Amino acid sequence: MLIVKKFGGSSVANKERIFRVAERCIEEYKKGNDVVVVLSAMGDTTDELLAKAADINPNAPKRELDMLLTTGEQVSVSLMAMAMHALGVSAVSLNAYQVMMHSTSRYGNARFKRIDSERIRHELDSRKIVIVTGFQGVNKYDDYTTLGRGGSDTTAVALAAALRADACEIYTDVDGVYTADPRVVKNARKLKEITYDEMLELATSGAKVLHNRSVEMAKKYGVQLVVRSSLNLEEGTTVKEVAKMEKMLISGVAGDKNTARISVLGVSDQPGVAFKIFHTLAKNNINVDIILQSVGREGTKDISFTVSQEDLKPALAILEEYQEPMTIREIKWEDTVAKISIVGAGMMSNPGVAAKLFESLYNNGININMISTSEIRITVLIDEKEIDKAMQAVHDGFGLGDV
Amino acid sequence: MLIVKKFGGSSVANKERIFRVAERCIEEYKKGNDVVVVLSAMGDTTDELLAKAADINPNAPKRELDMLLTTGEQVSVSLMAMAMHALGVSAVSLNAYQVMMHSTSRYGNARFKRIDSERIRHELDSRKIVIVTGFQGVNKYDDYTTLGRGGSDTTAVALAAALRADACEIYTDVDGVYTADPRVVKNARKLKEITYDEMLELATSGAKVLHNRSVEMAKKYGVQLVVRSSLNLEEGTTVKEVAKMEKMLISGVAGDKNTARISVLGVSDQPGVAFKIFHTLAKNNINVDIILQSVGREGTKDISFTVSQEDLKPALAILEEYQEPMTIREIKWEDTVAKISIVGAGMMSNPGVAAKLFESLYNNGININMISTSEIRITVLIDEKEIDKAMQAVHDGFGLGDV
Repeated sequence: MLIVKKFGGSSVANKERIFRVAERCIEEYKKGNDVVVVLSAMGDTTDELLAKAADINPNAPKRELDMLLTTGEQVSVSLMAMAMHALGVSAVSLNAYQVMMHSTSRYGNARFKRIDSERIRHELDSRKIVIVTGFQGVNKYDDYTTLGRGGSDTTAVALAAALRADACEIYTDVDGVYTADPRVVKNARKLKEITYDEMLELATSGAKVLHNRSVEMAKKYGVQLVVRSSLNLEEGTTVKEVAKMEKMLISGVAGDKNTARISVLGVSDQPGVAFKIFHTLAKNNINVDIILQSVGREGTKDISFTVSQEDLKPALAILEEYQEPMTIREIKWEDTVAKISIVGAGMMSNPGVAAKLFESLYNNGININMISTSEIRITVLIDEKEIDKAMQAVHDGFGLGDV
Repeated sequence: MLIVKKFGGSSVANKERIFRVAERCIEEYKKGNDVVVVLSAMGDTTDELLAKAADINPNAPKRELDMLLTTGEQVSVSLMAMAMHALGVSAVSLNAYQVMMHSTSRYGNARFKRIDSERIRHELDSRKIVIVTGFQGVNKYDDYTTLGRGGSDTTAVALAAALRADACEIYTDVDGVYTADPRVVKNARKLKEITYDEMLELATSGAKVLHNRSVEMAKKYGVQLVVRSSLNLEEGTTVKEVAKMEKMLISGVAGDKNTARISVLGVSDQPGVAFKIFHTLAKNNINVDIILQSVGREGTKDISFTVSQEDLKPALAILEEYQEPMTIREIKWEDTVAKISIVGAGMMSNPGVAAKLFESLYNNGININMISTSEIRITVLIDEKEIDKAMQAVHDGFGLGDV
């Protein structure tokens, strides 16, 4: 078997943890398996490097930032190889150049185009554990790129696809995917299996367990993912095409406080006005989430939408700049809101799910601001203060804690 | 003009110094010159990385050590590019892969084989300052190598040769090559010019201003070197094939405390015995310096030689191991000795130089232990305590402080 294992920055933050990961990989290797390990930069390394760069040049060219950041994973992988050698097992560290992980050109947010597998195959054939830098690629100019935060998950999936690995295990500080955040909902239950689509909806709804780009890629190439804890030997959650439904309507509840609502009032009720607003925001890389439009007074309409908290200020700046051509009478905003989402492949064939969600919230006196739905997800906007109570209420309402 | 400038680790140890170097390079660039900058790792980075590695695995594979160490220069060059951008000048950082600095395979002590110039030319053609990682290469396995300590000087010379640069400037914390260490000899004088051969002898005699491998390469490819201070605008010393002799017999005096003497006594006076001793030491990478052989009692001989202080213990271990087959009666050693050397192309045609050296030392009551000579150098071994007094005495004896 060929197994790809990915460990995040906190799993390799110090000597003890590096050795713990090394031992875990060696255990797999000693079963006779081929092992490819993907690592992030140690602990807070990436943030420290970013701070150094910001001190020198707050508007540093992204090409140079990537050149700087990619040193972080190179340090982790070489130290990991040294640790494995100390434990008597032959290992070799490789960076994006040595593997040749071809990516698109966009610095700071590149995507993989193609991954060469010869070097890794060659090293595996000589029975070495291969340790690869996560998070980085090389573009057509022969420059380093990075994949953006959480990119090491994507590296692991891309390598698993390129090498046709038998398994791709993502080790994190939680031991799987839960029906809700266990720190908020006490009786949250770990899922044995979940579908790619459900995992994607959960990831985009605020569950931080997997980077959604990695789930997309896993779905595209049929790479079966296992999310496991690096701290214990629990079985974890398998993410795959079709999951056993366990007779559940929904798989999980996710909360997300990183959201803000903007309302533009008194917009002229003419075709193209809404397009102009959202087109301008998109052009400036502002992602708009839930959108709600209502009829205003005297041939005008009011439009509300949500953005992430980071995008709130830039979005307001753009709206103010174009207030006149966009025919906006007034701009309002609020950053004390939160999203709560339920996700489940089962809701497609079950029309009562939305009603049950609203009922659970109503019974607990929680007011709903906005609603957005996809085929397998329903998201509602509520007051930020009520998010924990709402998570528990919805979790209980759907009986997710029961086995 | 195309100018290669090399700055050491202390010149880029912090933000202020990075900007000072950036400004200096930009000044050159704004004269219309093409500028290639070679940098070492910031401050103590290399030592810190080595300590990290030693903590994980004291016998770490050298391949992985090089993978780790090469991150140091990559951090310097990317931060330097950011600093230049902050000052409004377009710059690009490149590592050994991006330039393609082909080296021999030997990790930790590689030598350059060939350097590709296309990428650098391409960047220079678009009027960028090009910043290259010193100290590192890539071997035929596509793995990083390092050149050993002081290797960034060699990188600068190798790039200057490959690019046929008009000048190669080595910036250090001293402002040139002196007739003696100015911290020891108060009236030491900065040399305007020195030949490659003299510089080589000075470098191997303990003057730390240039790495001798870089001088060898400069000589081989006819790269004219200038040693300058990164802290001031003084003119520095030019190292070239033929230097103006300034009517001096010798160019400089160098002292070196990093030496120890080993004596093997009562060695059987048969052919091949001395060979066996020095061959065994060489096989174990121990460099032997001055050798002195004298006749002992009853058909035996005594052999004394010097090694660096680091090599003392390993050398003694080897001699003890082979004491019997090497027919050694007794091993003695002393580590409170020092070398003092005078170097000068002028001594070749001047037989009185050695006599003058011995006279200067004798007049100051300094005892000579051992003597070794080359065409343009005389080295004597003295008591370590007397090194400063001896340096001053010899410097005065040859009138090196007089202009």
